[in-house]
Amino acid sequence: MKADTIFYNAKVFNVFLKKFEKKNIAVKDGRFLWVDSGDMAELEAASSVDMHDKFIIPGLIDVHMHIESSMTTPSRFSEAVIPHGTTTVVADAHEIANVAGLEGLENFVDSHTVIDIFYAVPSSVPSTNNTMETTGGKIGMDETMALLKNKNVICLGEVMDFNGLVNDENSVISGIVKTFREQRPNFPVEGHIPKVEGLNLARFLFKGINSDHTQQNPKSIEEKISSGVFLQLQKKSVSKENMDVIIKNNFCEYACFVTDDVMADDLRNGHLNQILKLAVCCGLPVETAIYMCTYTPARHMGLRDRGCIAPGKIADMVVLDSIDDFSITSVYKNGKIVHNTDCDKTQAVNKSVFPEKLFKSIQCRKLTLEDLLIKVTDDEDVKEAVCNIIEIEKFGTFTRKTKKNVPVVKGMLDWEKLNLSLLIVMERYGKTGQITFALTNILKEKGAVGTTWAHDHHNLMVMGTSPEDIITLQHKLLKEQGGYGVCAGNEITAFCPLPIGGIISDEPIEILGENLSRVRQGMIDLGYENSNVVMSFSTLSLPVSPTIKVTDKGIFDCLTQNKIPLVEELI
Amino acid sequence: MKADTIFYNAKVFNVFLKKFEKKNIAVKDGRFLWVDSGDMAELEAASSVDMHDKFIIPGLIDVHMHIESSMTTPSRFSEAVIPHGTTTVVADAHEIANVAGLEGLENFVDSHTVIDIFYAVPSSVPSTNNTMETTGGKIGMDETMALLKNKNVICLGEVMDFNGLVNDENSVISGIVKTFREQRPNFPVEGHIPKVEGLNLARFLFKGINSDHTQQNPKSIEEKISSGVFLQLQKKSVSKENMDVIIKNNFCEYACFVTDDVMADDLRNGHLNQILKLAVCCGLPVETAIYMCTYTPARHMGLRDRGCIAPGKIADMVVLDSIDDFSITSVYKNGKIVHNTDCDKTQAVNKSVFPEKLFKSIQCRKLTLEDLLIKVTDDEDVKEAVCNIIEIEKFGTFTRKTKKNVPVVKGMLDWEKLNLSLLIVMERYGKTGQITFALTNILKEKGAVGTTWAHDHHNLMVMGTSPEDIITLQHKLLKEQGGYGVCAGNEITAFCPLPIGGIISDEPIEILGENLSRVRQGMIDLGYENSNVVMSFSTLSLPVSPTIKVTDKGIFDCLTQNKIPLVEELI
Repeated sequence: MKADTIFYNAKVFNVFLKKFEKKNIAVKDGRFLWVDSGDMAELEAASSVDMHDKFIIPGLIDVHMHIESSMTTPSRFSEAVIPHGTTTVVADAHEIANVAGLEGLENFVDSHTVIDIFYAVPSSVPSTNNTMETTGGKIGMDETMALLKNKNVICLGEVMDFNGLVNDENSVISGIVKTFREQRPNFPVEGHIPKVEGLNLARFLFKGINSDHTQQNPKSIEEKISSGVFLQLQKKSVSKENMDVIIKNNFCEYACFVTDDVMADDLRNGHLNQILKLAVCCGLPVETAIYMCTYTPARHMGLRDRGCIAPGKIADMVVLDSIDDFSITSVYKNGKIVHNTDCDKTQAVNKSVFPEKLFKSIQCRKLTLEDLLIKVTDDEDVKEAVCNIIEIEKFGTFTRKTKKNVPVVKGMLDWEKLNLSLLIVMERYGKTGQITFALTNILKEKGAVGTTWAHDHHNLMVMGTSPEDIITLQHKLLKEQGGYGVCAGNEITAFCPLPIGGIISDEPIEILGENLSRVRQGMIDLGYENSNVVMSFSTLSLPVSPTIKVTDKGIFDCLTQNKIPLVEELI
Repeated sequence: MKADTIFYNAKVFNVFLKKFEKKNIAVKDGRFLWVDSGDMAELEAASSVDMHDKFIIPGLIDVHMHIESSMTTPSRFSEAVIPHGTTTVVADAHEIANVAGLEGLENFVDSHTVIDIFYAVPSSVPSTNNTMETTGGKIGMDETMALLKNKNVICLGEVMDFNGLVNDENSVISGIVKTFREQRPNFPVEGHIPKVEGLNLARFLFKGINSDHTQQNPKSIEEKISSGVFLQLQKKSVSKENMDVIIKNNFCEYACFVTDDVMADDLRNGHLNQILKLAVCCGLPVETAIYMCTYTPARHMGLRDRGCIAPGKIADMVVLDSIDDFSITSVYKNGKIVHNTDCDKTQAVNKSVFPEKLFKSIQCRKLTLEDLLIKVTDDEDVKEAVCNIIEIEKFGTFTRKTKKNVPVVKGMLDWEKLNLSLLIVMERYGKTGQITFALTNILKEKGAVGTTWAHDHHNLMVMGTSPEDIITLQHKLLKEQGGYGVCAGNEITAFCPLPIGGIISDEPIEILGENLSRVRQGMIDLGYENSNVVMSFSTLSLPVSPTIKVTDKGIFDCLTQNKIPLVEELI
């Protein structure tokens, strides 16, 4: 037997011993053949590499994430994360599924990528139901069964519908979970369990939920792990006190790190490696942090062929100059170099191929200024309308409902008078063309922001303080067949094209990220105040996220799922 | 939501915290619904049980074992192990597969049992090939594919053929392993890796082997676990120094305890609980020992629905009076009591149903005294023959080859003169009727021992110092259609009927064990000296176990797989 390559003189991380050891590594056919401290004289090799005492760890594995959160394609995503050491992800591609259903999801699954991308069956497409939102596709029982036939589909994606699962045995989600557990009992059923505890937590887990990736605190970590939940800790859960709980209880066996959502502009700076570094900053030993980005996630997902540097496992390696600053010098996938800082040798990737129709997915009419006239009455004596206003929080994605008296002129709402923003969600799949109007008070300057990346249904959404800017931006979104843009003074000041399904782009992440960062700045320039303006705006349309959100079907109270009128009362 | 039962006031073992906690447990539909320290006032329950501060641990899980080693059926096995706390096993039923192929194995898989029995695809049926042994059935690629369709089949059984897997890409085992890894990448591929280390170990693991259950020492434990092998520690691997290695390295995450083979008479005394107790005696903390008999094996096998007492998991529980002596007072399966020492309430089991033809599986002719005359020459002047003699070791199942000059009278071997034992293996599947003669020197007294439980091909094997006793016993084995017996003075002194396929019995384990213990005593009375006479004799026919063994096809050097003649030379 002859090895392809022997890597000599490395400090190799052994996940089972949780320590680095001076070793040589032999690789054959893309897998580790032998890891040994001897000179490997017994083994011939076609080539050899001197690692000069560098550190080698397994490729990083991110088991809960959404590629579309980075507005990119699987191939471009792969290209973007390789320099950061990520070599395997498990993607829940529920955004493309909302836009293009099973077929769109299969375009993702079939994409050629350098890293290995496994997929979850998205469990909540649409996020609610078709009386609350119109989507391009859905994932029901038939689609679930079709996806289960694909070998790259390895889990059920985050189950969010607590009520549907716990209280209604006949709900779609109950059916999907039941089928999944019968058909693939050894696959994980991923959960989304924010702030659920006690008997409610137990009732959710009773249905077969295995994991949670929402924000944790020390108490929730202890309660969930001791209840059998595998925790996927994203950036916002990485804190000093949370890491202390992990260390104290040796919970590294039941928890891993994940990215969940990384914006396209952030992706230029790092991926799972950033969270790993943050965890170490918060006091987690680096060996434990590496373990929780490699072996633990692989084991949780049943990926028996990776997560460690050991014979027979896929030869994915990250080479580090130092484990103190976690500086990555090169990355190997299947035993072959795919990134090297010295010569910037990042392997070329095949571009994803999506069908032509996905590039023509914004099927709605051009709006005119007249469309924006909101007539509330025929009675010309009415002077004011008590309107429900969406107040947007400055942190996170939550909103609150307030009331304001808006002037009425000739039966029309004069929302501009109060410096309010008009928010429009327009059905864009060529089904109804329905438009919902709502009012917010977020923008301070004249202008508009708009996108077709509007969670989860991704209808066309524009919000502005100026009707002209709204119209200009809506036309731009139609012309470009999707994107994220800002308009001011009747000019497009920033635009990030998202031509594939209106939600993703095939540009390299450097260009895409730059475009998005300009949009972000443009929004800030309009006075949009939020810790993440891009996500804040895009989730104004998400009817499962508290408290009051807007879809093509109307304004909804997300807790009660009841419709809320724009106008409460005429005065 | 209403629970079926709430168990109050228990000291419940939490595998994630690795400690006992005072809790109440609610069960519904056979699964744990809620485990909490509060009074559970929020939850209604149809019934409640006061546990009076008893200890509750998850049902024990044995992931590497062979039911046929206990010469019993799945249903009787289930009945036998419940009082010992075993509620789930993963069985490699390669003995019934050798006898009856896919159909016989499916009879096992389809058996109704109280405990949950999952199955491995046996990877080595036959143990060698049909030039070395005749079997009733085989498991090749077609049978593997058929078995993979069964939801109770969850892994590939112990791969033993190192040479076939490592050196021959076209071997049957290479094909099966490759297919298995492609078709079911998330299933474990179980290995049998005795005394393999260094590059050879790496080459075996390179092919995708995930585990090992052979005898370990501290060095092999460290090498194998750090090479990514999941270790299944059976009784002979449980020692003070091995437990020290497990404790020192926190290897409890990568190792579990298994029984492998438990003889029918031993099974009356205990099962996996015996090994757990032994491990604790050897210094392993009881919490770690319980973990390695519950959560670790379940996780290794991808059995996400068990191995811990947590919401949503199958409600299998073992109740203990004390964790010091591990005294089991009751056992619950799917939330229902199936064993209780107070009133001896072991739940009745359905008997297994095997097809009629499996009760008529010994298809060979009656031997006569004339058949036992071993003619070695026509030359009446020949006085002696140099014969190869099988020396049987006093510990374990190994043999050695020696030579002896055996008198020749009228061309016939006079083996009785030297107090040798004649060993006969006779093809019994109605295929060839071929007989192999060999000589051993194990029995000290006049008599014979014989069985159809002769690993792995299970042909008819009789060995004796007296031709008459050999004949009597062979006729008895035919009449009873299988069993294990001893004959002396022309009378059957002990007999354990094994009428199903000639290898198992549907008698309750108390009766079967008693029968087998009498056979064991009968063999000892004939002067058979070995640490386990039943296993020693039965493996004289196993051509993959060192060093010289006998099949219906001849005497073989197991290392070279070359045939060895009975007579080397005539003098």
